[in-house]
Amino acid sequence: MAGSSFGNIFRVTTWGESHGYGIGAVVDGVPAGIPITEEYIQSFLDRRKPGTSRFTTPRKEADKVIIGSGVFEGKTTGTPISLMILNTNQRSQDYSQIASYFRPGHADFGFDTKYGFRDYRGGGRSSGRETAARVAAGAIAIAMLNELGINVKAYTRGIGAYKISDEKAEEIRSQIALGNFDIEKQAGTLAIPDEAVEKSAEEYLAGLIKELDSSGGEIECVATSVPAGIGEPVFDKLDARLAQAVMSIGAVKAVEIGDGKLVSEKTGSEDNDGFVYENGKVVTSSNHAGGILGGMSDGNTIIIRAAVKATPSIAKEQQTVNKDGENITVSIHGRHDPVVVPRAVVVVEAMTALTIADLLLMNMSSKLENVKKVYSNK
Amino acid sequence: MAGSSFGNIFRVTTWGESHGYGIGAVVDGVPAGIPITEEYIQSFLDRRKPGTSRFTTPRKEADKVIIGSGVFEGKTTGTPISLMILNTNQRSQDYSQIASYFRPGHADFGFDTKYGFRDYRGGGRSSGRETAARVAAGAIAIAMLNELGINVKAYTRGIGAYKISDEKAEEIRSQIALGNFDIEKQAGTLAIPDEAVEKSAEEYLAGLIKELDSSGGEIECVATSVPAGIGEPVFDKLDARLAQAVMSIGAVKAVEIGDGKLVSEKTGSEDNDGFVYENGKVVTSSNHAGGILGGMSDGNTIIIRAAVKATPSIAKEQQTVNKDGENITVSIHGRHDPVVVPRAVVVVEAMTALTIADLLLMNMSSKLENVKKVYSNK
Amino acid sequence: MAGSSFGNIFRVTTWGESHGYGIGAVVDGVPAGIPITEEYIQSFLDRRKPGTSRFTTPRKEADKVIIGSGVFEGKTTGTPISLMILNTNQRSQDYSQIASYFRPGHADFGFDTKYGFRDYRGGGRSSGRETAARVAAGAIAIAMLNELGINVKAYTRGIGAYKISDEKAEEIRSQIALGNFDIEKQAGTLAIPDEAVEKSAEEYLAGLIKELDSSGGEIECVATSVPAGIGEPVFDKLDARLAQAVMSIGAVKAVEIGDGKLVSEKTGSEDNDGFVYENGKVVTSSNHAGGILGGMSDGNTIIIRAAVKATPSIAKEQQTVNKDGENITVSIHGRHDPVVVPRAVVVVEAMTALTIADLLLMNMSSKLENVKKVYSNK
Amino acid sequence: MAGSSFGNIFRVTTWGESHGYGIGAVVDGVPAGIPITEEYIQSFLDRRKPGTSRFTTPRKEADKVIIGSGVFEGKTTGTPISLMILNTNQRSQDYSQIASYFRPGHADFGFDTKYGFRDYRGGGRSSGRETAARVAAGAIAIAMLNELGINVKAYTRGIGAYKISDEKAEEIRSQIALGNFDIEKQAGTLAIPDEAVEKSAEEYLAGLIKELDSSGGEIECVATSVPAGIGEPVFDKLDARLAQAVMSIGAVKAVEIGDGKLVSEKTGSEDNDGFVYENGKVVTSSNHAGGILGGMSDGNTIIIRAAVKATPSIAKEQQTVNKDGENITVSIHGRHDPVVVPRAVVVVEAMTALTIADLLLMNMSSKLENVKKVYSNK
Repeated sequence: MAGSSFGNIFRVTTWGESHGYGIGAVVDGVPAGIPITEEYIQSFLDRRKPGTSRFTTPRKEADKVIIGSGVFEGKTTGTPISLMILNTNQRSQDYSQIASYFRPGHADFGFDTKYGFRDYRGGGRSSGRETAARVAAGAIAIAMLNELGINVKAYTRGIGAYKISDEKAEEIRSQIALGNFDIEKQAGTLAIPDEAVEKSAEEYLAGLIKELDSSGGEIECVATSVPAGIGEPVFDKLDARLAQAVMSIGAVKAVEIGDGKLVSEKTGSEDNDGFVYENGKVVTSSNHAGGILGGMSDGNTIIIRAAVKATPSIAKEQQTVNKDGENITVSIHGRHDPVVVPRAVVVVEAMTALTIADLLLMNMSSKLENVKKVYSNK
Repeated sequence: MAGSSFGNIFRVTTWGESHGYGIGAVVDGVPAGIPITEEYIQSFLDRRKPGTSRFTTPRKEADKVIIGSGVFEGKTTGTPISLMILNTNQRSQDYSQIASYFRPGHADFGFDTKYGFRDYRGGGRSSGRETAARVAAGAIAIAMLNELGINVKAYTRGIGAYKISDEKAEEIRSQIALGNFDIEKQAGTLAIPDEAVEKSAEEYLAGLIKELDSSGGEIECVATSVPAGIGEPVFDKLDARLAQAVMSIGAVKAVEIGDGKLVSEKTGSEDNDGFVYENGKVVTSSNHAGGILGGMSDGNTIIIRAAVKATPSIAKEQQTVNKDGENITVSIHGRHDPVVVPRAVVVVEAMTALTIADLLLMNMSSKLENVKKVYSNK
Repeated sequence: MAGSSFGNIFRVTTWGESHGYGIGAVVDGVPAGIPITEEYIQSFLDRRKPGTSRFTTPRKEADKVIIGSGVFEGKTTGTPISLMILNTNQRSQDYSQIASYFRPGHADFGFDTKYGFRDYRGGGRSSGRETAARVAAGAIAIAMLNELGINVKAYTRGIGAYKISDEKAEEIRSQIALGNFDIEKQAGTLAIPDEAVEKSAEEYLAGLIKELDSSGGEIECVATSVPAGIGEPVFDKLDARLAQAVMSIGAVKAVEIGDGKLVSEKTGSEDNDGFVYENGKVVTSSNHAGGILGGMSDGNTIIIRAAVKATPSIAKEQQTVNKDGENITVSIHGRHDPVVVPRAVVVVEAMTALTIADLLLMNMSSKLENVKKVYSNK
Repeated sequence: MAGSSFGNIFRVTTWGESHGYGIGAVVDGVPAGIPITEEYIQSFLDRRKPGTSRFTTPRKEADKVIIGSGVFEGKTTGTPISLMILNTNQRSQDYSQIASYFRPGHADFGFDTKYGFRDYRGGGRSSGRETAARVAAGAIAIAMLNELGINVKAYTRGIGAYKISDEKAEEIRSQIALGNFDIEKQAGTLAIPDEAVEKSAEEYLAGLIKELDSSGGEIECVATSVPAGIGEPVFDKLDARLAQAVMSIGAVKAVEIGDGKLVSEKTGSEDNDGFVYENGKVVTSSNHAGGILGGMSDGNTIIIRAAVKATPSIAKEQQTVNKDGENITVSIHGRHDPVVVPRAVVVVEAMTALTIADLLLMNMSSKLENVKKVYSNK
C-alpha cells in the first residue's frame, strides 16, 4: 500500500534508500509564489549533517539538495516540487554481513516478513537517511509558514536524565515567539540551548561511548503565532496529525502535547487554561494545553515533545538470530551515532511544519466567508 | 476539509452532534463475510454508557445502535455499513447559557473562530458523544481481527496518582494474550483491573467530587497475536497511525508505545529487545518496543498508552470570557463525568482496532506472492 | 476497499441498499454558513422520483430526506451533514427469484464473484436507488455553487435516435447562463426541453414498451460562470474528475466534454477556440473545448455529455445462466423504467456539481496570495 | 491541492516540467518481488519517443530512464520506485515569445489565472512531456499485470475520418487475448494496425501538414484476462476510474467503454450481453458492455476508447490575446507533432494498466476469505 505520502493538500511523498541512487521528496500542493532556493533548503539539511562532532557518526554525507521541478525564477509555481539528494558516500561493504541476521531494535525482521526480502544495505528504506528528504520538504513548509508570520523551532530538551527545566523551556518558547531564537548560536554539539545541561549530557555520552552503548533523549518543538481554529475536529485534529507526524520518525516512542503525560495526574482546575481578553484579543492565561483544544489551535503557542529511543546499533554484545535458524550474539560496529537526538531535532521541526502547513490550507474552506474572499474578484 | 474519516481501506466516517437527530458512522471497506449483529455492537456501546455509577454522568443515553446497511443475513456484504444511534435524551436547556461564553479546556473558541459560529448544544460535534460512533465502528474491526486470532483489549491503567504497577500490567497482558481477560468481571466502576488500585482511585475521586473538581488518568491498550510486518515503513507506520488514532480522542494529551516516554532516559543496551528462536519462530526476549520496530509489528504484543486529561467541565469557579467582550467567571454545572477515563477505555480499544484492521488490509498487497495467493484460482 | 466516497475536500460518502433500512450520504467538508433546508433538498429528490409518468417505474418511493446532522439554525455548520432516506415501499418478494440467476446487463455476477454472495433484493447496493443519496448530496453542492454565482443544469439531450439539435442545445445553454432555464417548466415527462423531440421520443418509447424492450439516451449537463483555473493540471483535471463522476453513474458508457467524440475527426484550426478580449475580460470566441483546457476551466461554459444505456431489466426473453450451472432464458418482469434517462438527469447534475464544488475548494490554496487573503485578518 | 497522484494502493505521483531539470514519477505501493529493469521500462518510453517519422515532432528527446529507488537485485522491494528522466534537449529560446500571449487550445490562460504566473517554457507542467513519467510508471503496472496473466495493449483506432472497422478491431482484440499482438510489427508510423487505413491516414496527414494544420484521432485500449469482480461498486467503479485515467491525458475529450456513445441509440435487447456457461465458466455471448457491468469487470475483454483532439499548436494563423490587453493573431511555429495520437497510444496503455493494477490490489480485501488466504500461514 502506498504509505510514503503525508498530508492532504500540502503533501510530501518521499522515496529512496540509504545506499541506492539517492533519496528524494516530491512536495505537491505547495501554493504558487513562495520564494525558494536550493541554498535555503540546504541550510536545513546541514543541520542534520553527520560528522560534525564526536557525538555524531563520522560518515561524510554531502547531502546536497537539487530542486528538480516546481520552482521557476526563484518562486514556487504551484506544481510538484521534486527535491533530490544523490548518494555519494556509500560504503556498502560495511553492511554486507548484516544481511544474514536481524539487528535488535531495527526493522530488519519486519521488512523480511512483510516483503519477503530486503535491501539490507544501510537499513535500506528504514535508514535514518530517509528523513533528509523530509527535512528538505519541511523547509518549504517553513517558508510558507514564515510568510504568514508563523515560526516553528525545535531543540533538544534532554539526553538521558539531563533535561532542560520547565522554566528554561518557557524562556526558550518566548524567544521563539519573538523570533530571537537561533539554535545554532544558542546550543552546541547536542542542540541543547542550556549550557550547563549540554555539558552534563556531553559527559554522560562520553561515558556511554566508552561502554560501547548509546542514549535516548527528548526533543521539544514549538510553533508560534498559529491562528486559532487550525485542525479538523475529529480524526484530523491538529494534535492527532502532529502525533502521527512525529511518531513516524524512526526512533520516537512517545509524543506529548502541552503538559502531555502529566495530565493523567492533574485535576481539571489545575489543567484548564482560563480565557482572558488581552488587547481586545482572546488569549489563555496559561498554556497547559500546548495551544490545542478539541483538536484545534487556540491561538496560543503549540508545544509538542517527542521521546526518542537510544540508537539501536551498538558495539556492545547483543543477542539475536540469523537466517540459518541459529541464536547468535552480535556486536555492531560501524559509523553510528551514539545518540540520534541532535540530528533528529530538525526532522521534528520539519514534520511539525509539514503538519501545520497542511492543516492551515485544509482550514481555508472551513467557512463560506473564506471561499467568497478567494473568489470575490473572479 | 473532509476530516471526519479514518483509515485507507477499512475506513470509518463519523457524523453527528450531541443534540441533533443522532450520531452515526459509515464503515466502508469491510471485507464481506464477517458475522455481525446489532446485539454484538451493542455490547461495546454499553461499556461507554453513562449513568452506571457515581463516577459517570447521570445522563441517561440509551445509545441503541441500528445497522442501516451493509449486513445481510447476519454477515457483512462488503458494502458500506451504516451505524446509527438516534438521540433520545436531550435536554438542550442545560446548555443554552454556554452559547454566550467559551468554556475553558473546551473547543468552543476554536469552533467559533474556525466556522464563524457553532452548534453550542452539549458541545456539538466535539462532544464526547461522537466517540460512541467510533465504538460501534470499532466493534466491527474487532470482529474482523478476532476472525484472524487477534485480541484487542484496553483498561484503565491509572487515575490521578493511583496506577497499576508494571508487574501487574505484564500479568494482564498475558491474560489478554491467552484470551482470559474480561474487563467487566475483573474491574469495577473505574475499569481498573486491580482491586486495591481501583479502591484508592475511587476514594480519590470521591474527594474531588466534593471539591467540585475532576481528574485525569491513563489508559493502556494491548493487541496480541498481530502478525509481524503490519504497518507501512514511512508515514503510515503502525505506531504513527496508532498515535493519530488515539490522540484523536478528545481528552488525550500523550501517546506512548511500549516503554514510551521512558526511552528518553534509557541506553541502547537497556532498550533493545534481543531476538531468539522459540519453537522455530523468531520472538523477542523482552518487549520494550511495545511490539513495533521501524513502524512495523514485530510479532510481539502491541502496547499503547494514552494520558487523558481531567474533564474540563467543572463546577469549581473558572476564569473565562464571554462574547460581549467581558472577562467573567463561570462555574459549570450539569451532568458531567468527574473522570472520563473509564468510559474512554472502550474508545481507545476501538481506535486501536480500527488502526490495526486498516493496516492489516493495507499490508495484503505488500508482496507479489500475496497477490498471487488471492488471484490464483480466478 | 473503501470506494464509496467521492471528492477530496467536499467529500460525499454514500451507503445503503435498495431494500435495507434505507440509504444515505454523509457530506463532509462543506463550508459553514450555507443555507440548507430539508425542503430545498427534497425538491431535487422529487425530480428523480418514480411513478410520475408511464415512462417511469410505477414503484412508489416517497424518498423523504432527513438531515441528521451538520445543519444548525438553517445553515451548514462545517461538520459532516448526514442525509438519510428511509425505505418505505419494499416488496422483497418481487426479487426473490433473481437470487438464483445472473441478470444480463446487471452487476449480479460481479457482486457474487467479488464478495462471495450478494444482497439480491432489488439490485442491492448497485440499485439505481443509491443515486438518490448522490442527488441529496449534490443539492448541497449546488447551494454552495449558487452562492458563488455558478449554475449547474442538466437535461435529456436525446432518447434513441431522437436528439436535440446543436443549435437548440446552444440556445438552452444561453438560458442556463442567464438563469432563465427551468427544466420542470420547459420539458415534460422525458426532461427533453424541445417539444417536438420529446413528442417523437415518447412515441418511440411507447412502441418499445409494447415490444417489452427499453431504450438508451443521452444527457447533457452545463455549468456556467465557473471561474477560470478550476481543476488540477495532471490527474485531478476538471474533465478527468467529471469523467469519473459521471461514468460512476450506473448505466453511463461514454462521457464527452465539449465537442467530445467529434474532435477525433477535426483539425486543429477547426477545434481551437481563439481568445479575445471582451469588456476587458479574456473570453473565447467559440467553445469547442467545452470550457476546459489542459484540465482547467477557461472561464467559458462547461459542457459535459453522458451516453446512457438502455434499462437492462426487460420483459423480452434473454439468455443467461443460473447458479445450478444451467443455461436458461429469463424474462424480467417487475416495476422497471423503460428508459432511465429522465430520472438520471438530476443525478448527472448532482455529480457535476459535486465535482466542481470539490475542485473549486481545492483550488483555493493554489497561490500564496489566496492563502494570505484568508489569513490576513487573523 | 496535491493533484499529481493517481491510485489508492498502486499510486503514481509525477513531477517535472518540459524544460526544467527533468521529469519523473514516484510509484508507491508496488508489491515486492516483481522483476523490473531500466531496459524493460525504456522499451515503453521508446514507443512515445519523438523524431521517428515525419508525423512526429523532429525534437530529439533521449528520454533515458533512471531507476532511483525501490528495485534491488532486479526485483521491486515494496518501497517507492523513483523513476527519472533528465532533460537533455532543451531549446528554451523556441518558447520565449509565447510567454507574452495565451496559445489557443492550450492551458496557458488557466495556468496564469490559477497560479498568478507560469513556467512558460515548452508548456511547463502541461507539456505532453509529463506523460513520459506516466509511461514509465505504467510499465511497472504492466509488469505486475503480466505476472497475473493480464495483457494490456493500445493502438490507434483512427486518424481523422480514417478508422479501423469494427470487424478488424474485433480481430485485433482476439490477437491481444492470445498474446499474438505486437504493435511495433503490425503497424507503421501511426500505430494503426491496418495497412490500408494507415496509408490513407498518412496521406491525409501529409495534406494537413501542407496546410499548416493538424488532426485529431482515436485510440483503443484492450485489457484481456482481467478476473471478474475488479472495480468498486459506487464511485471507484472500474469504468469510472478508467474514465478519469484516460481523460486526464492532455488532449482527450471523450472516453467510451464497450459500445460507448452508441448505447444511447440502442435498445435493451440489443445492448445486453447474455451469460452462458462455456467449459464450466460463466462468460458472455457478446461484449457490448466492454467487459464492465455495474462498475466491475465481468471476465470479458475490457475495451476503452479515447477521442483525442488535434495538436493545438499549428502554424496556421489563429486569433488570441496578449498580456498587454491586445487582440492579436499568431502562427505557432516550432517542433510540433501534426497529430499526437501515435505517441499517445502508449500513454493510454499506461493509464489503463495503472488503473487496473490499482483496482486489482484494492479488490484483494473484498472478502474475509481472501484476507484469510494471505494471513493463514502467519
